[in-house]
Amino acid sequence: MIINGTNKVNIKQINGGITSPKGFRAAGLACGIKASGRKDIALVVSDKICSAAAVFTTNKVAAAPVRISKKHLADGKAQAIIVNSGVANAYTGKQGDLDAVRMAQVAGEAAGVDSHDTVVASTGVIGAPLPMQNVEAGIKEAAGKLSENGGFEAAEAIMTTDTFSKEYAVSFEIDGKKVVIGGMAKGSGMIAPNMATMLAFIATDAAVYPETLGVFLKSSIDKSFNSITVDGDTSTNDMAVIMANGESGVEITAESTAVFKEALDQVCIELAKLIVRDGEGATKFVEIDVTGAVSDGDAKKAAMSVANSNLVKTAFFGEDANWGRIVAAVGYSGSEVNPDKIDVFYGDEKLIDSGSIAAYNPDRVDDVLRAKDIKVTINLNIGNGSARVWTCDFSYDYVKINAEYHT
Amino acid sequence: MIINGTNKVNIKQINGGITSPKGFRAAGLACGIKASGRKDIALVVSDKICSAAAVFTTNKVAAAPVRISKKHLADGKAQAIIVNSGVANAYTGKQGDLDAVRMAQVAGEAAGVDSHDTVVASTGVIGAPLPMQNVEAGIKEAAGKLSENGGFEAAEAIMTTDTFSKEYAVSFEIDGKKVVIGGMAKGSGMIAPNMATMLAFIATDAAVYPETLGVFLKSSIDKSFNSITVDGDTSTNDMAVIMANGESGVEITAESTAVFKEALDQVCIELAKLIVRDGEGATKFVEIDVTGAVSDGDAKKAAMSVANSNLVKTAFFGEDANWGRIVAAVGYSGSEVNPDKIDVFYGDEKLIDSGSIAAYNPDRVDDVLRAKDIKVTINLNIGNGSARVWTCDFSYDYVKINAEYHT
Repeated sequence: MIINGTNKVNIKQINGGITSPKGFRAAGLACGIKASGRKDIALVVSDKICSAAAVFTTNKVAAAPVRISKKHLADGKAQAIIVNSGVANAYTGKQGDLDAVRMAQVAGEAAGVDSHDTVVASTGVIGAPLPMQNVEAGIKEAAGKLSENGGFEAAEAIMTTDTFSKEYAVSFEIDGKKVVIGGMAKGSGMIAPNMATMLAFIATDAAVYPETLGVFLKSSIDKSFNSITVDGDTSTNDMAVIMANGESGVEITAESTAVFKEALDQVCIELAKLIVRDGEGATKFVEIDVTGAVSDGDAKKAAMSVANSNLVKTAFFGEDANWGRIVAAVGYSGSEVNPDKIDVFYGDEKLIDSGSIAAYNPDRVDDVLRAKDIKVTINLNIGNGSARVWTCDFSYDYVKINAEYHT
Repeated sequence: MIINGTNKVNIKQINGGITSPKGFRAAGLACGIKASGRKDIALVVSDKICSAAAVFTTNKVAAAPVRISKKHLADGKAQAIIVNSGVANAYTGKQGDLDAVRMAQVAGEAAGVDSHDTVVASTGVIGAPLPMQNVEAGIKEAAGKLSENGGFEAAEAIMTTDTFSKEYAVSFEIDGKKVVIGGMAKGSGMIAPNMATMLAFIATDAAVYPETLGVFLKSSIDKSFNSITVDGDTSTNDMAVIMANGESGVEITAESTAVFKEALDQVCIELAKLIVRDGEGATKFVEIDVTGAVSDGDAKKAAMSVANSNLVKTAFFGEDANWGRIVAAVGYSGSEVNPDKIDVFYGDEKLIDSGSIAAYNPDRVDDVLRAKDIKVTINLNIGNGSARVWTCDFSYDYVKINAEYHT
C-alpha cells in the first residue's frame, strides 16, 4: 500500500499472468522442437500497438533473436512476442539471423501484426539450428489459438529445465479505473548443456510512453532480475520485455508514477524470486540484505559477492553457520568495508557484532538454517547504502544436473 | 633454456624446496594447534639478512598476520618466516594483532633474528584465537631443529586441507656459479569451514635489490598464482613472499635478469599448478590458453572467466565437450570478442572454427576429455594478446567437502 497523491493505493496480487491485463491474448503449444513433446512455442499478442521497452543480455556472444529483437524494439513499439524453447538459436551464424527474422514474419502475418512490431526470443541448446518447418507450423497454430486465458499455456511453453511455470500479476486502481500488470518468466536452470537463459515478458494495460517505460523497466530489473543469482553465468539469450497497450484507459502521469513503479517492482521481484526458488538443485532460498554501505552500489557489490560465493552456497546446503565465508566474500567484493564495524545476522540472531563474534544462541541459528527460506543481514555500519538480493544454495544436484548430461 | 647475453643458460629442476638455496634452514613440527596432531608450525631462517618482497591478499578483511607482515616487509628486508596452520588468526580483533606480533618476537628471539625482519603467516579457521602457549613452545622447539634439510617438514607444516605438500626448486649457473631458487606453497583447498588460504614462500641465494625483487615477484605471480582458480573465492590470508640472501655470490644484473625471471616464473608456475592439482574434489587439471585477444589483459579476463565458470567446470567433471558454455563464458568476460571469429580447440581437435561448428572427430575429443590433464585453446583472432591459466573440474566432492563439514 503506497501513497498516490493524497490517496492510498492498494496493489493487490491477482491470479494470472501475461494475459491478465486487458487486450492481451496468448497461446502456448508443442510443435516438435523438444524431443520430449512438451510445449515449445508461445505467442503473445496485444489487440493494439503497445509502447515497449526491453533489457537484453550483456553477453557479447548474443543470440540471433536478441539481435533481431533489439532492432524491432528500437522504435519503442511492439504488438507481439514470439518465443520458442528447446533451441536457443545462439551461435548459429547467418542462418540463425534469417530464422529469427522469419519467426517474426510468420508470427506477424498469422497474428495480423507488423513483423517489425514482433519481438523474437529463443531459449534452449546453443549451436543447434531451429527446425523451421515445425516452428512455422507451430506459430501458425498458436495464432489460431490466441486467447485471453492463454497466459498459463504460454508460461509453460517458454520453460526449458524449469520445474514449474512462473507467472505473477497485480492490479491497482487509479481514479477508479483498474490497471493490471502481469508477466511470465523462465529460469536460468541450465540443466541441459548450453541451456542458460532468463526470459521475462511483462504486459500492462496502462498507457506509458516508451521512454518512460524503459526507465521504469530498468529500475525494476535492477531490483529483481539483476539481484538474483543461481550460478553467476550470464546467458547468451537473456531478455526482459515490457509492453503497455493503454487498454485500461489509464495513463501513467507524474502523480501515478510511484504506484506504477511499485507495482512493476512487485511483479518483477516476485518473478525473479520464483526463478531462484527453481534454481538448479536448489534446496534453500536465501535472501541477503546488505545495509550501512557507503552507497547502494557498494551494498549491491557486497551482497552479490556473498550470493555468488560457492563456499557460502555450499555452507547453506550444509546448514552450517559459516559467517567466516560471508565476511570473506564481503571483503573481496570491492565494496568499501571496515572489518571492525561489520554486523552479521542469520534471521534475527546476531552472530557478528562490530567485527567480533557475538554471544548468540546456536540453537536459534540452527533453526534459521534448517528452514527452507533463510535470511542473512549484513550491516557494514559505514553509510546509508543498501541492497537486497536472492540466491539459492549449492547442492550435489547442481553438479549432477550439469555434469551428467552429455551433449 | 634461454639466452643470457651470448650464452645459453640451462634452468634445471632439482629435488628440494625452500632450503635448497644456500644459507637457508627450516623446521616443521606439531605443537598442538591442530586437533589431528599433524604438523602446524613452520620456521624458515636465512643465515644472513635478505632482500625481501611480498604480495598480499586484496581482501579488505585481511588477517592479523597479513597486516603485521606488511609492516615488517616495508623496509624490503627479512631474515625469517614463521607460519602456523590450523588457525588463520583472521577476524580476531586486537588480540589477533598482538598474537601475530608475539609470534614474530618469539621466532626472532629463538632464531637470533630481529623480530621486525620476521614475516608472520597463518592459515586455518577464521575467527578462532591462536593457542599462544602451544604456538610459543612450538616456535622455540622449531628454532632448535632448524636444518638445511628441513624444507620438506616446513612444507608439510603449512598444509591445512592439502592432500600433499608442495615444493619446487631450480638451479642455473651464472658465470660458473650456481644459483638456486626454491619454494613451498599450500593450496586454497577450503575443505574445513573458513579455511581458505594460498601461501607461497620462495627463497634464493642470488643477490637482488628489494625493489627489483618486488618487480620480479609481481611479474611471476601474475603468470602463476594469479592465473589459477579453484573456486574463485579470495582468502583473507593469502600471501606470497620471496627472500634473497646473496649466498651464491651471484648478483642479478641487467644481463642475468632474463634468466632469473625465467627461473622464478618456473618455480611460481609449478607451485601454482600443484595447488590446482590439489584443488578440492578435483579430478581433472585443465589448462586454458587464450590467444588472439586485443591485449594480454583481455586474454586473461576471457581465460579466467572460463576457468571460473561453474558450468564449464561441471562439464569437465562430466567429460562433456560443452563448447557452448566456454563460448558463453568468453562472451560475458568483459573481453573484446567477435563471435564470428572465435576458434575453440580441445587438445589438438578444433571444435569451433571462426564461430561455426567444425567437422571434428568426436572420438578424439572424447579421448581428450577422458584424460586427467586437459588443454583448451581459445583463439579470439582479433589481436595478439594471450594468457594461460589453470583450473580444475567441479565434482560432487567439492560440494561434499564444503557442505558436510560443520562449524
